Amino acid sequence: MADVLTIYGDSISGNCHKVRFVAELMKIPYRWIETSVLKKETRTPEFLALNPAGQVPIVTLPDGRVLAQSNAIMLYLAEGSDLIPQDAYARAQVVQWLFWEQYSHETVIAVRRFHKHYLQKADADIDPTLLPRGEKVLGLMNDHLAQRRYFVGERLSLADIALVAYTRFGHEAGFDLAKWPHVQTWVQRIEANLGL
Amino acid sequence: MADVLTIYGDSISGNCHKVRFVAELMKIPYRWIETSVLKKETRTPEFLALNPAGQVPIVTLPDGRVLAQSNAIMLYLAEGSDLIPQDAYARAQVVQWLFWEQYSHETVIAVRRFHKHYLQKADADIDPTLLPRGEKVLGLMNDHLAQRRYFVGERLSLADIALVAYTRFGHEAGFDLAKWPHVQTWVQRIEANLGL
Repeated sequence: MADVLTIYGDSISGNCHKVRFVAELMKIPYRWIETSVLKKETRTPEFLALNPAGQVPIVTLPDGRVLAQSNAIMLYLAEGSDLIPQDAYARAQVVQWLFWEQYSHETVIAVRRFHKHYLQKADADIDPTLLPRGEKVLGLMNDHLAQRRYFVGERLSLADIALVAYTRFGHEAGFDLAKWPHVQTWVQRIEANLGL
Repeated sequence: MADVLTIYGDSISGNCHKVRFVAELMKIPYRWIETSVLKKETRTPEFLALNPAGQVPIVTLPDGRVLAQSNAIMLYLAEGSDLIPQDAYARAQVVQWLFWEQYSHETVIAVRRFHKHYLQKADADIDPTLLPRGEKVLGLMNDHLAQRRYFVGERLSLADIALVAYTRFGHEAGFDLAKWPHVQTWVQRIEANLGL
């Protein structure tokens, strides 16, 4: 058993990057165990014993306890830090964006990226609803960012980290971010915050 | 402007029920504004001004501030109560289940229920992946509940409330809960907790 945080993650997964970003911002020592979805390493008996849902990322704490779901892991690791606002309503807004990201954004942008960029499918073989849904998602973000530098409040929060994870790979999903200039500028800002 | 919490919700939506359940358990006074998805009342300019994502539930606080996303609203309303464990890891487990519910459960059980029960589609006209995915979701819950009375810890938490919201309508989605007896018993337990 490691005496530091262990992250089981796939290096091509934005969901897994989120956990790494927070660990690095928080200066939490960790080891990374590469766990490939494409190689079905999330479907082995050993992995399913850690997470019956068969999804990465997961973390194991130094005492062996497991936690799954990227945004839940971020909230756990970042508790008490500036990445989560102290004000109850601002905190709730961050959490609101985290749920919106998983329900409405990841299921479109990340899924289209996976089929187009990693499975190398032709556009005609990809769910045709993903393109207009992705444009709507990016349009909503662009409107929100028109007068704001960060998603909630005046500084980086988990909302930005969750949302940038796949937005920054929008081109791999077939979305030219130049069409959503506030999003494009914000991606550059958050990447600078994350030292990318 | 109301001097109490206002819930904009659709009475047929489990996501909206969650918010009502928590308000009632917490004895938070509220008014309910019926907002029908089928009647496209979530697509009016007035509603989109409150929530650009066009989704229910939302709440407006007595001062007019808005919050969206059912699970984010529950976490906000229930903060400091027994519905959220005080222990950091147990709390994180509740949050983990909330994200799993929105990503892996609602997108299958609630979606199939909507198409089958409300849009009255024939099974052949419903996404064929939803049936095996729903069986997998219910199987995972059944395994988790084999040795447990509640999803996290020894008492009712937001994890149970989020997960029961659509599981209790499993039959309307075409799933006979008798096939997953631990789930069936747990649904009855949580409904009793909620006074249903």
